[in-house]
Amino acid sequence: MHYQEYALIVAGGKGTRMQHATSKQFIEIKGLPVLMHTLLAFYRYRPDIPVVLVLPENEIETWELLCRKYNFHKPVILQGGGNTRFQSVKNGLQKIEGDGLVAIHDGVRPLVSTAIIRASFEQSAQHGAAIASVPLKESIRRMEDGSSHALDRSHYRLIQTPQTFNVALIQASYQQPEYPHLTDDASVAENAGHPITLFDGSYENINITTEEDLVIVEALMNRQEPA
Amino acid sequence: MHYQEYALIVAGGKGTRMQHATSKQFIEIKGLPVLMHTLLAFYRYRPDIPVVLVLPENEIETWELLCRKYNFHKPVILQGGGNTRFQSVKNGLQKIEGDGLVAIHDGVRPLVSTAIIRASFEQSAQHGAAIASVPLKESIRRMEDGSSHALDRSHYRLIQTPQTFNVALIQASYQQPEYPHLTDDASVAENAGHPITLFDGSYENINITTEEDLVIVEALMNRQEPA
Repeated sequence: MHYQEYALIVAGGKGTRMQHATSKQFIEIKGLPVLMHTLLAFYRYRPDIPVVLVLPENEIETWELLCRKYNFHKPVILQGGGNTRFQSVKNGLQKIEGDGLVAIHDGVRPLVSTAIIRASFEQSAQHGAAIASVPLKESIRRMEDGSSHALDRSHYRLIQTPQTFNVALIQASYQQPEYPHLTDDASVAENAGHPITLFDGSYENINITTEEDLVIVEALMNRQEPA
Repeated sequence: MHYQEYALIVAGGKGTRMQHATSKQFIEIKGLPVLMHTLLAFYRYRPDIPVVLVLPENEIETWELLCRKYNFHKPVILQGGGNTRFQSVKNGLQKIEGDGLVAIHDGVRPLVSTAIIRASFEQSAQHGAAIASVPLKESIRRMEDGSSHALDRSHYRLIQTPQTFNVALIQASYQQPEYPHLTDDASVAENAGHPITLFDGSYENINITTEEDLVIVEALMNRQEPA
């Protein structure tokens, strides 16, 4: 069965861990704002994929200025965000009508590969909810009562995006109230009773949150160019 | 009270996740093998710190050749490693005589800062066992019975090195048998009944395990230079 595929890019972060005045999704790497790199990753996967872009209301004008400045003319469907990531995704999902699959992805993960995007749609077509994840490279400890104890890291996975879902499944899941422990789309779907399938993301699929992440992402982009 | 301070650098990994034929600790970044960068980080902290370097027996000759090639003449105390990290650290600890504190550190974490090394000695002087750690940047899930469930990431820490101890405490801890769940020095000390104190490491204190880590570490080193 063929499913219509959508992308929903969430770019809400204010970059409070950054020293930049610019919102982190607008910081330029290699001549282009981070967010445009992220969108281009999805257009590389499928040039005609419908993309919903959720931005804070007060950044939509900036975005439109940047599109003119960088000559970025893609048929992106803009949607104003809410006060939280939950509200922003919920708003964005309302822009999607009809059946299909939607890949929900962080605006500041520009290094997502075509292979990961493809895997996310394939896995969600089969299982309903498919999440990119990677094993831990480091040991892990759990904090408790001022102390901590070692865990077996092979039982854990770090979670990335895309988090890709059957559209009806994730739209219905977002009808529940917003609880503080629902920190990503997978936890929203899980809390609504849906099993979550994990597939392999990649260590390069970095979520830009700190200054050094910008340096790292630029270095990885430079490496990819000759290929 | 003043403690004598030691460093114990463990460079045992065969780099099986790397495409390089060279052991990962000998790969050159910015004109110097990774392992020399790591040793220099400790000499920057204290130029006269006694350093025990644990290397696989069959790499000691290579190391000595590299020292001549790169004009690296430091009074490093060499020790042959064992078949596992546990055995290697245990061997290295036998080279340390007398009281004091020992910072056990991965040979492939060249970006450890002077501030982190200092904090590790200060914290271990106070608490006996002090471990560098960082909060998780990503969501985390626990795998169970083919399924997985979301966790509250604020309760978890990723563990780095240095892991720094009272010498007598860690020497005694390494007298226990080697169990598979003892994956780092903290878990060895914890299993021997000692509480573990965590202090803040840094996201830049990367353990080089994959090809992209080499690219990342080089980019971060380049950034540090102007400062």
